[in-house]
Amino acid sequence: MQRVSLETPVLKKNDEYAAANRSLFAQNGAVAVNIMSAPGAGKTTLLEKTLNRIPFRCAVIEGDIQTSIDADRIRAVGIPAHQINTTCCHLDAKMIGDAMRQFPITGVELLIIENVGNMVCPAAYDLGENLRVMVYSVPEGAEKPRKYPRMFYQSHCVVLNKIDLAPYTDVSVEELKANVLAVSPNAVVIPVSSRTGEGLDAWLEWLTAKVGEARAAAICA
Amino acid sequence: MQRVSLETPVLKKNDEYAAANRSLFAQNGAVAVNIMSAPGAGKTTLLEKTLNRIPFRCAVIEGDIQTSIDADRIRAVGIPAHQINTTCCHLDAKMIGDAMRQFPITGVELLIIENVGNMVCPAAYDLGENLRVMVYSVPEGAEKPRKYPRMFYQSHCVVLNKIDLAPYTDVSVEELKANVLAVSPNAVVIPVSSRTGEGLDAWLEWLTAKVGEARAAAICA
Repeated sequence: MQRVSLETPVLKKNDEYAAANRSLFAQNGAVAVNIMSAPGAGKTTLLEKTLNRIPFRCAVIEGDIQTSIDADRIRAVGIPAHQINTTCCHLDAKMIGDAMRQFPITGVELLIIENVGNMVCPAAYDLGENLRVMVYSVPEGAEKPRKYPRMFYQSHCVVLNKIDLAPYTDVSVEELKANVLAVSPNAVVIPVSSRTGEGLDAWLEWLTAKVGEARAAAICA
Repeated sequence: MQRVSLETPVLKKNDEYAAANRSLFAQNGAVAVNIMSAPGAGKTTLLEKTLNRIPFRCAVIEGDIQTSIDADRIRAVGIPAHQINTTCCHLDAKMIGDAMRQFPITGVELLIIENVGNMVCPAAYDLGENLRVMVYSVPEGAEKPRKYPRMFYQSHCVVLNKIDLAPYTDVSVEELKANVLAVSPNAVVIPVSSRTGEGLDAWLEWLTAKVGEARAAAICA
């Protein structure tokens, strides 16, 4: 019996859709950021604390298995949001292309794509984004970068969220940071607490600079 | 172009392997428990606090993307453990069947299968287990049962772990419990802190009773 690997053709097709998204983002002058994490790491809360504090016109595409809770939270802070409900454990590039037909990104400078909460599969699917950010919840433990390295090493920035909880756990933030850098030496690692606001300035500064650079590069291209 | 759904044949094949595992567990007089959660919810820590406090000869099969950290931790408390490293975001029944050829379960009364940390895909794959337990970390938020209902409603028991952190978060354990029961009315919900030991007696009592019942039913069958 011949065995057929399904991953390669599925991902090849995904790459074609991702390339189309990339063109569409560029044509609109939008920078796209794919935010990934395990469920409950605090992506939406981080976005609530971010979107009105950066100098760009933002919009958000939300990916979830069920409900529009996250899109509703984003709209509640005054930012346009579109909810994708998928039976799938990750977003893929076709879903983003389809979403943009219902949710046009004209005038949007920064498009945030909040992926499905999952530390494995989303990392395999290019959405056509300019930047990848991973949010990691400190109480999840210091060793996870070694156990689930792919999402860490594919991310330009790893936000270590919920550092306010660290004193009440056995997790060493220093050990966690070292484990992130061991699997992803070029990642920028930013410890924050979205709840208390600690570290958010460093995150806002990084995001503003990187989105500005990507926009400048697109204008020169 | 004809579209082919891959999920159905893949899951049908999985069900055949699961049935074979189920027979093998029964022939050996072993009860199998599939423990699932998002990454970092505390499955391994819960097992460390469980395995020497229940009246059964235990063994553990660990599923992870990389490393043997979890199997090493289980062996360190004196329990035989076998590590599966998979590129996949979940365990399937064939992986368990293959593992049991290298890791025979003769004499094992309780086989714990610790699934890959992922709140989506593991719920779709029957491993042939007798019982399904979900571990959920309280700091992940109260609304997740509504966003990711499948794993919750497929579990016989939902352990709400890290309740010691609840006072330092905005999460209401009562609201979380209500959300679990809304999607999974028959689940037994047990709040615990593996770290402080709070609630562990209730968990050990539930597990001991359920494994005892499953063993008694197998002997009578």
